[in-house]
Order: sequence, then C-alpha cells, then structure tokens
Amino acid sequence: MNYGILIFILGWILKIEGGLLLLPAVVGFIYRESAGVWFLLTAAIAFIIGTVMTIRNPKSRKVYAREGFVVVALAWLIMSLIGALPFTLSGDIPNYLDAVFETVSGFTTTGASILPEVESLNHCSLFWRSFTHWIGGMGIFVFMLAVVPLLGGSTFNLMKAESPGPVVGKFVPKIRDTAAILYTIYLAITIVECLLLTICGMPFFEAICHTFGTVGTGGFGVKNSGYTEYAPILQNITTFFMIACGVNFQFYYYLVGKRFKLAFSMSEVKAYLIIILVAIVLIAFNVRGMYGTTEEAVRHSAFQVGTIITTTGYATADFDKWPAFSQSILVLLMMCGACAGSTGGGIKVSRIVLLFKTIHKELSKIIHPRFIKKIQFDGVSVAHETVRNTNVFIAVYCVIFALSVLCISIDNHDFTTNFTAVTATINNIGPGLSLVGPTQNFSFFSPFSKIVLIFDMLAGRLELFPMLLLFAPHVWKRY
Amino acid sequence: MNYGILIFILGWILKIEGGLLLLPAVVGFIYRESAGVWFLLTAAIAFIIGTVMTIRNPKSRKVYAREGFVVVALAWLIMSLIGALPFTLSGDIPNYLDAVFETVSGFTTTGASILPEVESLNHCSLFWRSFTHWIGGMGIFVFMLAVVPLLGGSTFNLMKAESPGPVVGKFVPKIRDTAAILYTIYLAITIVECLLLTICGMPFFEAICHTFGTVGTGGFGVKNSGYTEYAPILQNITTFFMIACGVNFQFYYYLVGKRFKLAFSMSEVKAYLIIILVAIVLIAFNVRGMYGTTEEAVRHSAFQVGTIITTTGYATADFDKWPAFSQSILVLLMMCGACAGSTGGGIKVSRIVLLFKTIHKELSKIIHPRFIKKIQFDGVSVAHETVRNTNVFIAVYCVIFALSVLCISIDNHDFTTNFTAVTATINNIGPGLSLVGPTQNFSFFSPFSKIVLIFDMLAGRLELFPMLLLFAPHVWKRY
Repeated sequence: MNYGILIFILGWILKIEGGLLLLPAVVGFIYRESAGVWFLLTAAIAFIIGTVMTIRNPKSRKVYAREGFVVVALAWLIMSLIGALPFTLSGDIPNYLDAVFETVSGFTTTGASILPEVESLNHCSLFWRSFTHWIGGMGIFVFMLAVVPLLGGSTFNLMKAESPGPVVGKFVPKIRDTAAILYTIYLAITIVECLLLTICGMPFFEAICHTFGTVGTGGFGVKNSGYTEYAPILQNITTFFMIACGVNFQFYYYLVGKRFKLAFSMSEVKAYLIIILVAIVLIAFNVRGMYGTTEEAVRHSAFQVGTIITTTGYATADFDKWPAFSQSILVLLMMCGACAGSTGGGIKVSRIVLLFKTIHKELSKIIHPRFIKKIQFDGVSVAHETVRNTNVFIAVYCVIFALSVLCISIDNHDFTTNFTAVTATINNIGPGLSLVGPTQNFSFFSPFSKIVLIFDMLAGRLELFPMLLLFAPHVWKRY
Repeated sequence: MNYGILIFILGWILKIEGGLLLLPAVVGFIYRESAGVWFLLTAAIAFIIGTVMTIRNPKSRKVYAREGFVVVALAWLIMSLIGALPFTLSGDIPNYLDAVFETVSGFTTTGASILPEVESLNHCSLFWRSFTHWIGGMGIFVFMLAVVPLLGGSTFNLMKAESPGPVVGKFVPKIRDTAAILYTIYLAITIVECLLLTICGMPFFEAICHTFGTVGTGGFGVKNSGYTEYAPILQNITTFFMIACGVNFQFYYYLVGKRFKLAFSMSEVKAYLIIILVAIVLIAFNVRGMYGTTEEAVRHSAFQVGTIITTTGYATADFDKWPAFSQSILVLLMMCGACAGSTGGGIKVSRIVLLFKTIHKELSKIIHPRFIKKIQFDGVSVAHETVRNTNVFIAVYCVIFALSVLCISIDNHDFTTNFTAVTATINNIGPGLSLVGPTQNFSFFSPFSKIVLIFDMLAGRLELFPMLLLFAPHVWKRY
C-alpha cells in the first residue's frame, strides 16, 4: 500500500466535501435556520483536516488497482462519517449511527431512510440529504478528477473502482476530459429537469431536491407523502428523468457528438429499454383492476418500474399492496438494476446480458464440443477477463446477499422483510416489501443490522470488491 | 442427435422400470390390496413398450455429451409419466397432474407432496412412493449401467449427465464396475438403517419406507404426523443416516478399501461436516428457549439441519415457527445442499467451496495483478473448464430460480411461499416456509405452477443443463 498517496487523495476528498458542505450552509442562511451553522462548522473541519493531509506531496504518485479500490472505499466511508455530523449536531437526527445510515443511504443513492417523517427537518438538512444523492450519483472521484488537476497518468484506477459496470470506458483519451464531459452532461440533465418541474408547478425548493434525488437515482424526498400527492404531469416528468438517468452516459456522449448510429446500436441501452417496456405492460395489466382508469394504471406502473429498475426508490403507489406477480417483477428489477455507466445501481443490465450470453455459449459447447466462439458485445469480442469477472461478481453478490440476510435475521423480523431489506440496500434502491415497504422506514432495525445494511449500501454502490478488499490483510502491507 | 441410441436406451429404462414396478405389486399382494393389480398392469405396459423399443440394435452406439444430457432428461420425464399411472389408476391420487408431481417429487428425491394426508393410501402406493426415492437417489442410469451389459465404451456421458457435482469421478477404470460399487455401498447402507430402525422399535413396513426416504434423501413418509411422534432414538438414527447419505460416496469407497488417509483428507466432506456442526450449534442455541431440555433442542436442531442440508425433507419440528435467524440458516442450507456424488441435492458443497476459492483468487489478482495461481482442490489443480462451468452453473441456477418465482407468483400467494417453494423444489428438499412449510403441502398451487415446480425438481436433480438442452432446437438435428 502506498500510504503517501492514500493520505493525499483522502485529503483532497475532504477538502472537496468541505466545499460542497457550504451549499447547505447557504440554504440555511437563506431560510434563516440556525442549523446552517453546523454545516458551516463541519465544512471548516473537513477543509482544515483535508488541508493538513495534502500538505506533503506523496513520494510516489502511482495508483495501482489495489490503491484505487482501497482509496475509493475509504473515501466513501470517511465522506459519510463527516457528512453525517451536521445531522446529529443540528439535532435533526440525534442518533449518530442513524445519521450515518442516512448519509450512506444518500451518497450511495439508496434512499432508504430511518426517518418516520421528513417535513419537520430544517431546509438545510433536507437540501444536504438530497444533495448527497447528486454527489454520489456520478461519483465524488469523477468530480475530483474533473475539477482538481492533481495527479499524473495513473488516475484511471480511481475511476475504475468507483464507476459502475463490468468495463469502464474512456470517452476520450484523457481521464480528466472524460470526467468533465460526464459532469457536464449530468449538470445539463439536472438543470433541464429542475426547470421542467418548476414550470409544471412544483415549488422550487422541492423541485431542486427531487431533481437531485431523480438524476442521482437516489430517492430521498422532502414530503411525508412522498410522490403520491403530486400532479400526474410531475410524476410523469420524474418517470422520464429516472429512466433517462439509468441509461449509460456514453449514449448521451454519442448523442451530443451526433454519432446517432453508435448511440442507437448500444445493445445494453436497447436491452434496458425493452426490459422496462415489458415490465410496464405486465404490471399495468396486472394492477389495472386496482385503479380507476387505464391511464392511472399505466402511470403508476411506469413510475414504479422506473423507480425500481433505476434503483431510485420514489413511489407513487404502495406496491407492497400490489399482487404477488407485480411484486415479483419488481424484486427481479431490483436485482437487475440500470445500465453500467449510469447513476443507477443493481447488478447492471450489461452484466445480465453478458450472463445470458455466457449461458448460451456454455450450452452451445455441450452441443458442439469443438465449437469455439468468443462472446461478442456491441460487435466487439469481450475479453475473457471481463467474462470471468462478471461471473465472480455474481457469485460474490450472492454470498454477500446470503450472509447479510442471515445477519439481519437475528432481529427476528419476517423473511420478506429481511430478504427485501438486503435487496433494497445492496442494489441501492431504498424501499423493499413488508416492514420496509414504500410507506415504511428502516429505523426499527437493531444497530448491528444497521451496520450490516450500511456495509451493503457501500458494497452495492462500489460494486463489491473495494469494500471486500478493506478486509484483506495483504492490502495493507507497506511497500 | 443419434435417434437410434436414444430410443434404444429409453427402451431399456422402461424395461427396468417395469421390473421395479413389480415390487409394489408384490407389496399389494401381501397386503391383499386390489390396487396392486394396477402396478402389475403398468409394469407390463412399461415392459412391453420397452421391449419393442429395444428390438432394433442402434446403428451407432456413440453417446456424445448432447445425447447423454438429452437421454437422461427424457428418461427421467418418461419414468415419471409412467410411474404416476398406478397412483391415478388405483384412485389414490385421482388427478394425473398431481400424480406426476408426486412421482417427479419421488424420483428427484424432493419429497414435496400434494397429499394432505397419507395414511389412507394403499400400502403398495406408499411403498412405490418411497421406493422412487431409493431409485432416484443413486440414479436410474447408474443402476442400468450396473446391471445391464448393453453398451460399449461411451456410457460415461450418461453417468456424467445424471450424477451430481461439478466433476464426476470414476472409482475404477470401468464405468460398469464403478456403478456396481456405488449400488453395493448404497444397498449396504440401506440394509443397515432398516435393521437398526426395526430393532429400535419401528414397524417393519414403516422402517423400510423411511429408510428409502432417508438414504435417497427424499423425504416421503407414511405417517400423517411425519417424524414428530417417533421415539428420540429413531429420530437420531435417521439424523445419522441422512447426514451419512449426503457424504460423497467416494468417501465410503476409500473406507471400504481401507484408504483412510485419502478418505479423511477429502476437503468437501470436511467442509460439509463443519457446516453441519456450526449450523446445529447456532440453531440449537437460537431455539433452546422453545424446548424443555438442551437435549431436545440439540436433537431437533440436528434433525432439521440434517434433513435440510441433505435435502431430505423429513421434519420433527415445525421450523416454520422457529425464529427468523434459524429459518435463514435453514434457507441457506437449502441452497448449499449436500456433497457431490451423494444422494443429496442442492448446489453442492464442492461448488460452494470452489466458489469461495474463485472469489479468493479474484481478490488476490487485484492485490497482485501479476500473480498467477491455479485453484487447487484436494491437492489437485482444478481444470479451468470446471471453474467456468461452476460459475455458469450458479448463474443458470439464479436465472431459473428467478423466472420460476416470477411464474408461480401469478397464483398470488405471499413472497415467502413463492420463494421457498422454488427453493424447496429446485434443491430437491420438500418443505419450505409459510404455505409450503413442513406441516403443509403443495396441492393448492395452480396446474401451471405445478408444471413449473415439476420442471424445477427435474432441473435441480439433473443439475440444470439436461433440462435446458431439451429446449435447444440444435440438439434435435439428425446426423
């Protein structure tokens, strides 16, 4: 482990978080809330610690894969521990473990909350809660690489460790430019959605918070009623932007560059949209008896499919009361998740596509033993490494999943609750079924279970390996 | 597809089933039950059809991997369709689909039943029901290869398709001798258990049926109360034999040959016994408040762990009422399953061990990118093929699992029922939780769900690929 660079990068992360914490402080100032002071104080602390950590330039600037994974895992952990402070200091979330749960849930864009109601919170806390989604959605390292010209050529391993998906592509040769392009597209989508929501009648503060929750595919809201009481047009706009932010951002990069043919031939995006369409139709058909009109059934079906597959977690309907068939579809969509290279979580559509291709290849091999075929994806042969990594990813996913269910079942809640609580956190969705259904919250879990679920949220967002590596003694060897 | 050999082998399977059906006919004769006639009739039909199919010698005796898989899948299907006839003809199970469910559940050693009570059945039906476990436990093809000197050298693909586990070993160079050794060990264990149960006070008919259910790790019983009302000593004997039959039979082969060092160094068997021990201790600790004495808690814990990990399915306690932690452990043991090369089902301990080794290797590769390490198992390098096949197996398992839950959720039962019904059938266990708990049965499912669960039972017993290949059009091409 190159401890010099580890401390240096973590220092920069703290400085950036200090800067970002000024925004909720400003919100507090606008609404004349005393809680804003705590955000200012935390910002100052983060910035000072960060500055101390970055005084000494590291001897070696090499960031190998292992440093990449460990730095990213630690950074997300520290960001959450610091980001939780103002919640507790201001008294909005008095229990610090609960505040950490809420902050991790924010940064990882999970949206699972321990709060039974949110309308009594300060505006600055509500803003910060939603803003963590926006930061975590595209990633803090992508942000850092875009704005801080700090490192040499070996920053790719940082982006690789943080970005979702089996293969991380660079749009352009320079990492820094790729990161800047990503954040520019992200910012543009954010502004458009916020404007549209405001124009269509949502109060500005609510619009901005919900936009953060939508484009980051997070799911924290600012109303106790969630999304249920908003006008259909506002629900539909949100459905559109949720689904749009679950698309691989490479798609938008191609669109902006007018390379339409490349954009529309992306097989992951096609598969993603087909899955969404099929799910919407099946569920709308299944629940149509519960709603007055077909429009209503389709609207609720589309919103819930969008919110679940992109792992956002808003809800316009209590799907815990839907028929079992619709619930099963939603649970499958929870596992599936959005596209790689999007702000959504889950296993990712590209991994699912790759999985089916591997299964098909294995079956072909039984029929034609001497037939050698490479798996293709968008016309390119997939590296053997990637296929193996995908298989191992699914295996690790199952193992962490099973052990987490086992751990939280010590609390003795029902199987559906335990199973879907883990599903909702490891896939960064938010609500599950039964006791963690869309109208419930996570506050009733024991501290131990909360720590397990915090681990699951981080493991899910960082795609398992970085969090696991923290426990490998070999990683920590100095060299 | 070599249709000549396909018909020839299926014919032999029918002739053998005809022979085996004479046993329940004899039982019917002893108990002077008219139902015995239907077993005799079915035996005659099976034998006649079988004889017709084996009149013509196939031109080519080659059995490639694809023939192996398809023949085995078809044979199990046909065996079940024929084996279900006497249940319906005798009126014991009037609905033929239910009878097929029960027979598939028998042959695949699942033990899931559609019968609300069993004591009103004819003795010959009860005997046949339990006897199917015994046949399916070690496998009909292993039996055929042991007793019928029909094929040349290419029979290994048949055994490979039917035998459980990632690698199928031959004890001795000749397949036929290996099959004979397996059945000899199997028969010896059967006789010992049956004698012990009878000596300790179980009526002979019940002893023989329960022995079939135990050594085949099936789970069909002959009492409405299941195993709950038997004396503790009978429960403990059964626990011992269930666990013993979940051990890789290679272990016994080594023992018989006095190669103790080889036997006790089998890492799969060690892992299997450690998992069992840990699970018994954890559950006994968790449920001790529900029982009067520690002895009782340990006995019920051991019986339930044994019955679930070996996928037998007997029960001495209604574990649907146990705390969630114990239930979660049982659900994990359901997935895990017994050793490869045993009569038990599930994913198999060796695959789980291999999985953890693969994960460990992948993590090491991140830390030391240039470090090349082959995965070892019992001191031997595991072929790359086997590792990949294991990964794909787990992936296919997840996919079939997810789709099955989706399909049966159309019936609109609760999530726990749907999830554990699939778990209990694809892993060939029997009972699940909630509506399919140990005191319940599977009769309430719709015909469509029953067909899905029948598919799952067969897919689980034959380890997924044979059943999938039936749907590949390429397989059926003549050549």
